Amino acid sequence: MKTIIKNVKIITMDNNMTEIENGFVVIEGENISFIGHMKDYKEDDKNIIIDGYGGILMPGMINTHTHLSMIPFRSLGDDCKDRLRRYLFPLENECMNEKLAYHSAKYAICEMLLSGVTTIMDMYYFEDEVAKASDEMGIRAFLGETIINFPTCDSKEAFGGLNYAEKFIEKWKNHNLITPFIAPHAPNTNDTNSLIKANEISKKYNVPISMHLSEMDYELKYFKEEFNKTPVEYLESIELLSDRLVAAHCIYLTDNDIKLLEKYNVKVAHCIGSNTKSAKGVAPVSKMLQHNIPVGLGTDGASSGNTLDIITQFKLFANFHKLENKDRSIFPAKEIIKLGTIMGAKVLNKDKEIGSIEIGKKADLVIIETNSVNMFPVFDPYSAIVYSANASNIDTVFVNGKCVVKNKKLVNKDLQTIKNDLKNHMQQFEQKAKEQLEKAIL
Amino acid sequence: MKTIIKNVKIITMDNNMTEIENGFVVIEGENISFIGHMKDYKEDDKNIIIDGYGGILMPGMINTHTHLSMIPFRSLGDDCKDRLRRYLFPLENECMNEKLAYHSAKYAICEMLLSGVTTIMDMYYFEDEVAKASDEMGIRAFLGETIINFPTCDSKEAFGGLNYAEKFIEKWKNHNLITPFIAPHAPNTNDTNSLIKANEISKKYNVPISMHLSEMDYELKYFKEEFNKTPVEYLESIELLSDRLVAAHCIYLTDNDIKLLEKYNVKVAHCIGSNTKSAKGVAPVSKMLQHNIPVGLGTDGASSGNTLDIITQFKLFANFHKLENKDRSIFPAKEIIKLGTIMGAKVLNKDKEIGSIEIGKKADLVIIETNSVNMFPVFDPYSAIVYSANASNIDTVFVNGKCVVKNKKLVNKDLQTIKNDLKNHMQQFEQKAKEQLEKAIL
Repeated sequence: MKTIIKNVKIITMDNNMTEIENGFVVIEGENISFIGHMKDYKEDDKNIIIDGYGGILMPGMINTHTHLSMIPFRSLGDDCKDRLRRYLFPLENECMNEKLAYHSAKYAICEMLLSGVTTIMDMYYFEDEVAKASDEMGIRAFLGETIINFPTCDSKEAFGGLNYAEKFIEKWKNHNLITPFIAPHAPNTNDTNSLIKANEISKKYNVPISMHLSEMDYELKYFKEEFNKTPVEYLESIELLSDRLVAAHCIYLTDNDIKLLEKYNVKVAHCIGSNTKSAKGVAPVSKMLQHNIPVGLGTDGASSGNTLDIITQFKLFANFHKLENKDRSIFPAKEIIKLGTIMGAKVLNKDKEIGSIEIGKKADLVIIETNSVNMFPVFDPYSAIVYSANASNIDTVFVNGKCVVKNKKLVNKDLQTIKNDLKNHMQQFEQKAKEQLEKAIL
Repeated sequence: MKTIIKNVKIITMDNNMTEIENGFVVIEGENISFIGHMKDYKEDDKNIIIDGYGGILMPGMINTHTHLSMIPFRSLGDDCKDRLRRYLFPLENECMNEKLAYHSAKYAICEMLLSGVTTIMDMYYFEDEVAKASDEMGIRAFLGETIINFPTCDSKEAFGGLNYAEKFIEKWKNHNLITPFIAPHAPNTNDTNSLIKANEISKKYNVPISMHLSEMDYELKYFKEEFNKTPVEYLESIELLSDRLVAAHCIYLTDNDIKLLEKYNVKVAHCIGSNTKSAKGVAPVSKMLQHNIPVGLGTDGASSGNTLDIITQFKLFANFHKLENKDRSIFPAKEIIKLGTIMGAKVLNKDKEIGSIEIGKKADLVIIETNSVNMFPVFDPYSAIVYSANASNIDTVFVNGKCVVKNKKLVNKDLQTIKNDLKNHMQQFEQKAKEQLEKAIL
């Protein structure tokens, strides 16, 4: 049985940026088997027909940096200074547990799918639980267990993630939609030894390694004082820079850092919403792209970026980078959507399989409806997505050929049930969080 | 018959920032007559009951700068350099007409209402048509006819808006929801004479005067060269600064400009989305507020800010001003929502009637639902609105005691019909716009 999507304006995001008015796409199994117009395709009776009602069909969006299980932190202490160390780490260590990680991840995946995100790169704790949630929900997921220099919610010992990660990779490495990887938290929250070990595991299994990099002012200060290097230079010195590395944030980069990232073919996950809300800065994306560094977009966790959709990042990206470059014509909408689709796929080394609408590629597809009041007129579909759309305009989503969202609702999954499960497992967390609020720690 | 809203978390935005859990509000006629808990109110049978299902009840949002009738320009040439002079003005002069202005305004008001905006300050051409649309749709509207130094779509002569405006003010000055005003386009697109005349009309009828101010780099250059003054200093020299003036944008202000705005009790409409997308800059809002200058939020027209909802501006405001001030704790969510509600009311000199939920004030109210996936958890309702919500989370809207949006749909109005009417009147515009696109002017 084939699935046919008709009556859509297709933006393929292929190399030629092909667009098809009143387009028609056929999905067979996991893959796209036809792209074009209805009249050029011989239909048979048994197909499933999805009418796009004049909406925009685009590739599924790719969220290259997130922390799914941090949903419980959303709207908690958003405007609080230095809250990562003062607040988030302690609450996480006290209240995060296996079940909460699982139910939170499941809820977060609902938000991703409902907003048109079909592939995610997640790093957190209890990643085995996150993998179970991803598997159940049918999202394409890169999942990395975190390694950090103190005991955590899932390890009594510092650096316990190293052991966890290796078992985790062994367990999930052959899954169709899940790619396990390893995730040292950051250079400054690890030591040289743990970073080298993590990199060895990444090399051994040929899986990505991802970490926060050049995100914190105190991170820069630390490496300057300890090694007289930038964090990037430090990673080079211990041979951590490679084409397996996905570096998140990279806000504070010197020109030499950029050259190093280019030289070693490092990839970058850019989180404009998280980076600016926390008043850190705007990563030099324009320069990175000039140096052929693949840059994808990420939301960060719900504690930092609040929402997990990529559309919000598009709009923030546009305004921040245009202003930063003092040029309204830099990063036209089309280029911004590239970052959230095909470029995100490049960041994950998966651009031969996902990131654009092409025959033979996996059917990770999104229909954005244009009936809502904010979506008219559409002179330029890219512009409409970047500047007019919000996450609630996503109507239909396919992952790997399977329809997971239709008419703005999850298919065969009940959001309310998933939310209630999460609520039931959030009670201790909520209690502690409220105590901290009362103590005015936040 | 009274209307009762129950089962809502109320953020009143009153002077004490009163919040009520599981709150209850009663509307009688145009006004709010009770705020509190259900148990403290004696219900009778004839009331209309609105169940908020645990959502957030807030004051209607106030959009202090917009151009309703510019809807046809949405998604057109967004990333084009100097498009105002090169492109928008010519297309406007050629294709904007009475009927298009009317149908566009009507559509734009749908978007405002559906996104929880209950009061707008609009300036454009054919304001009589905009007033008719506002009256029909039941929005609270400040409407100003534009005066500019060249012939326009509604005047064969330069400065024709002066005549139009006076008639327009005469006609609408006693309307319950509409406040007519006068709107010189900008200091540099008028001459001293027209500015003085416009100000005389504003004074004569005691209505606001609003204009774009300190928005363009070439505007600054012009006044420097011609008068050796800033635009604000120039306006002072011709006695244009007063408490009737609502100045839109005010991006490029010197410290002396800020002192002048404070001295003359000028109000400011801040359009963060429009100003940053066009790579102009971030207005010094923190400084203005320190100087007790009332600052409201505006979307600008759909050609500049694309969407007309204030929630998008909240998020952009947060991230831009936090980064600009290098401080994640500046402008906590609560303070940002003030700008879009009670402070907006101050900008319009209407803070005794609207802008907060208080007994005796007009019932301009909004329920934001918290059932959508992006709206859980809600530890802090302000935070949830600023960082998590989008325009599509608006569920119910009251203007002046009347329910205009319920279950995310317009009450007694059909969006599809209004859109079709607009489409029918957009044909010539669309044709011309596409020709310009083909000539690659955009």
